[in-house]
Amino acid sequence: MRRGLLAVALALAVAAPALAQDAQQPPKRKSAKEIIDAAPASAWRDLDPANTLYMELPAGRVIIELAPGFAPEHVANIKTMAKGGFWDGLTIYRSQDNFVVQFGDAEGEEAGKAKPYPTGTRTRLPAEFTRSTEGARFDKLPDIDGWAPQVGFIDGMPAARDPKAGKAWITHCYGVLGAGRNNAPDSSIGAELYVVIGQAPRALDHQLSVVGRVVKGMDLLSTIPRGPEPMGFYQKPEQRAPIKAIRLASEVPAAERTPLQLLRTDSQAFIDATEARRNRVDDFYTVPAGHIDLCNVALPVRSPPAK
Amino acid sequence: MRRGLLAVALALAVAAPALAQDAQQPPKRKSAKEIIDAAPASAWRDLDPANTLYMELPAGRVIIELAPGFAPEHVANIKTMAKGGFWDGLTIYRSQDNFVVQFGDAEGEEAGKAKPYPTGTRTRLPAEFTRSTEGARFDKLPDIDGWAPQVGFIDGMPAARDPKAGKAWITHCYGVLGAGRNNAPDSSIGAELYVVIGQAPRALDHQLSVVGRVVKGMDLLSTIPRGPEPMGFYQKPEQRAPIKAIRLASEVPAAERTPLQLLRTDSQAFIDATEARRNRVDDFYTVPAGHIDLCNVALPVRSPPAK
Repeated sequence: MRRGLLAVALALAVAAPALAQDAQQPPKRKSAKEIIDAAPASAWRDLDPANTLYMELPAGRVIIELAPGFAPEHVANIKTMAKGGFWDGLTIYRSQDNFVVQFGDAEGEEAGKAKPYPTGTRTRLPAEFTRSTEGARFDKLPDIDGWAPQVGFIDGMPAARDPKAGKAWITHCYGVLGAGRNNAPDSSIGAELYVVIGQAPRALDHQLSVVGRVVKGMDLLSTIPRGPEPMGFYQKPEQRAPIKAIRLASEVPAAERTPLQLLRTDSQAFIDATEARRNRVDDFYTVPAGHIDLCNVALPVRSPPAK
Repeated sequence: MRRGLLAVALALAVAAPALAQDAQQPPKRKSAKEIIDAAPASAWRDLDPANTLYMELPAGRVIIELAPGFAPEHVANIKTMAKGGFWDGLTIYRSQDNFVVQFGDAEGEEAGKAKPYPTGTRTRLPAEFTRSTEGARFDKLPDIDGWAPQVGFIDGMPAARDPKAGKAWITHCYGVLGAGRNNAPDSSIGAELYVVIGQAPRALDHQLSVVGRVVKGMDLLSTIPRGPEPMGFYQKPEQRAPIKAIRLASEVPAAERTPLQLLRTDSQAFIDATEARRNRVDDFYTVPAGHIDLCNVALPVRSPPAK
């Protein structure tokens, strides 16, 4: 046995091997995968097509859940731009290792070359860096966090909360989608977007308007060749990765949609699966960590089961 | 100005734009890049060729610093295997999104197909999950960490320390190189290796023998197409990414080496640059984070300056 597989590091993907057990041993604890597989239908929620973007790349579809509860004006503007086909034929023009990919109009700042915005697009929006904690159900993790007083989940998004300030925000975990801006806090409108592809750059938290999260297809974004210029830009336009289209799922014919379900972060299955990862004890892991980082918590996605 | 560049999120790559300053304003704090650029020669150390691996891929060279202070027996075995050309012509056979790439002999467990180990390779090693804190200079970060009592740097590697247990270990940050194993703690010999390519999987800390860190060329590993099978394995052998060779730098003719210098983690420049990132205040960042995660601390690398 030469090949170390880190087998059980991946409880979601592969069940722990069933070993003959001594009758004296206590029963094995359930793995995260076993817990999720056994979750009742009520623990899952359907991804809402009216709140979902399909980013069509030559290699396939990236699926994004939008976060109108955090950035309502940006999300509304993004929907307007998607309906108007703004990103169709534009590119991913930046890929910086261990940080972000960024897409939109690479020539947006060049006079005469910028692609016009679709009718109805707002060209000035307020900064939406945080939201009020009021009215936001917070599925809190017990784990400490160096960046924020409290961390957990709101609307299925990884989030942090500052109860004293009465504010909450989406945290910059892997797969999170944010609106790029210039120095002025209100300089983003959602036309230029970035996705985190590396170690969570939490220093960006509550400094940009975060608009959603990739729920499927991250591998298509994370493997885009890095740009050689500073900050991951490409030298030549032809090096940029083309975007065929970005569409709102509700605008796509039903037969062409990708139905998905997400495990509710307030479900017992989610809580139990997270605990199974926080304190793994199995044939591989001998010392439970006793901790999980917000950005290490898996947010399970599945195709809806056949009816 | 439509394109949000997250400009100063990248102080290492791009200096903050010099804006006309009001004479009443206090002087700008130095950015991490400015601090590093001004570091004296004594703040830098040369990468030791006797302790450096070159992984030659078709797309270029990945440079790895080994960690004999943490896993002396694994590192010695890896040097033996590199000298004997063990990995030459083998592959990266696993690429799992937001987790690891893994390489070695994909057929190592198939009877009759496994590549023989070079003469002198040891086929059984002790687990080297932790080292004693004794004799290990620890450049401690003041920041809290959820996974370990203390975090910082030892031998230029991101590390954690448990003073009560008298143990230290390399943490699974982006770019860290570990020895894959099966369930038995002592089942790794360094033939099958993995590199972290996503959010730090710190739950692996002190559960595997960590043998070093990629110091240059991570983008060549992080962009390898993900394997479609569970855990990121490929379906067909031809999908695997070929390795031309892995050589010890000291075995490579001097003219073919890539000289590099790393900023010492005990230098004032490193401490100051980390503080500049912990509490960024500039034209982009308006709220200092007051915190930095161990795995977000940049470990600067440069080509030696011309003499």
